[in-house]
Amino acid sequence: MIGIFDSGVGGMTVARAVEQLLPRHQILYFGDLARTPYGSKSPETIIEYSIENTEFLLSQGARVIIVACNSAASVASDTLRRHFNVPIFEVITPAVQEAIAATSSGRIGVIGTRATIRSNIYERTFAAMSPGLRIFSQACPLIVPLVEEGWLDKQETKMILRRYLHPLRQKQIDTLVLGCTHYPLLAAMIRQRMGKGRITLVDSSTAVAENLKAFLQTTPEILSLVNGPDLNRYYVSDVTTAATAIARKIFGRRIDLIKV
Amino acid sequence: MIGIFDSGVGGMTVARAVEQLLPRHQILYFGDLARTPYGSKSPETIIEYSIENTEFLLSQGARVIIVACNSAASVASDTLRRHFNVPIFEVITPAVQEAIAATSSGRIGVIGTRATIRSNIYERTFAAMSPGLRIFSQACPLIVPLVEEGWLDKQETKMILRRYLHPLRQKQIDTLVLGCTHYPLLAAMIRQRMGKGRITLVDSSTAVAENLKAFLQTTPEILSLVNGPDLNRYYVSDVTTAATAIARKIFGRRIDLIKV
Repeated sequence: MIGIFDSGVGGMTVARAVEQLLPRHQILYFGDLARTPYGSKSPETIIEYSIENTEFLLSQGARVIIVACNSAASVASDTLRRHFNVPIFEVITPAVQEAIAATSSGRIGVIGTRATIRSNIYERTFAAMSPGLRIFSQACPLIVPLVEEGWLDKQETKMILRRYLHPLRQKQIDTLVLGCTHYPLLAAMIRQRMGKGRITLVDSSTAVAENLKAFLQTTPEILSLVNGPDLNRYYVSDVTTAATAIARKIFGRRIDLIKV
Repeated sequence: MIGIFDSGVGGMTVARAVEQLLPRHQILYFGDLARTPYGSKSPETIIEYSIENTEFLLSQGARVIIVACNSAASVASDTLRRHFNVPIFEVITPAVQEAIAATSSGRIGVIGTRATIRSNIYERTFAAMSPGLRIFSQACPLIVPLVEEGWLDKQETKMILRRYLHPLRQKQIDTLVLGCTHYPLLAAMIRQRMGKGRITLVDSSTAVAENLKAFLQTTPEILSLVNGPDLNRYYVSDVTTAATAIARKIFGRRIDLIKV
């Protein structure tokens, strides 16, 4: 079974991408709604929560873990790989690979939560995989609350996005990494705010799902373990009406959230 | 010692009001920054956290508890009073008393988080204390994240406030309860958004501090217990730079946040 955790329901964009790409695999999702959001909290606290979430998913039978939350992936991936003897996927490395493949000018933007941007994880991963690129980062801390309010086409959301994206517009980037699972829900507005030039948006949700698929195809012993019935489960540490509404929006169908 | 808890640092507006009104009493503050915010979470989760926070403050020597978070006060006050054998103060009752004293027209507005407004606690408390008033409530869920970002004078904050307050403007209220400890930081902007008419803003922070002072003066056995050195302690479950900045803004001086 494929275990996926996130600070809330934003990571369901990853679960949905996995479901579409690997429809015959069972997904165990955990959304930490009782402690959401992670992006404004300290690295120590995010690491502690990530270890607890991984332990929960393993106890439920997960054999592969995807850290769907960029904030958790940024600060906790290394610790999780040291602590746990299962493959740990995260949303950052695949997004960086995809951005490297997409860019022509070598000028790439990254947007994310404060925790993600402060960690400098994208800069470090880009530098390790393809030195010489120019990376421009911007924290967008208010976007998660706006998306969670469902303010996807409000004028205020456009204005706040314009304020955040303005510095990146000056940098003539040709590729922009959406470094938070909530941001794909605003992809059209982000594209519009970035102006008339052609720009490639990299969505880490689909990137990590493709990485996982490639891994499973070359790792038959894991494949046989995770190849199960299509009986996905969506666990959360709290149930709210706002979260239920976002889950429905992401999947286009009703999702039963199981409180644990 | 006076124990005060909040979901984060917003409740420090209460701690500051208590400090100014009762300067010779020791304050023990707990801000649950590792799980903030409460206002978008379910009543069950908020009650669980409120019990844990109260237990922590009692274990540190608190003899009186103030629930400084409106969301927690809304859904958890009754449970706390049943569970714990100490006086439990909360920000709602004193704010309602002050609003009743202030109104001439009997038309009162209340703004708060989604958890606070959904609980209908203000309507019920007004009805119990002064039947016949007209109460108009409005949830303002994005105001807490905007204040925590420090966007206190941004155009976007003005626009979002205008959107939230517009329905209340139609109701010709003469008194508005700021039903969240973050809102006093936007008092001037809220007053401006409510239009030209004279309106009384009720700040629950000062209201609860005055209630506590009156209680302590008539309860000498508690007074002798809490009468201690001016050595206030500010505990938090997580430390972030944003929280440190808001704490400094509220107190006008540096506040040492102690992580527990």
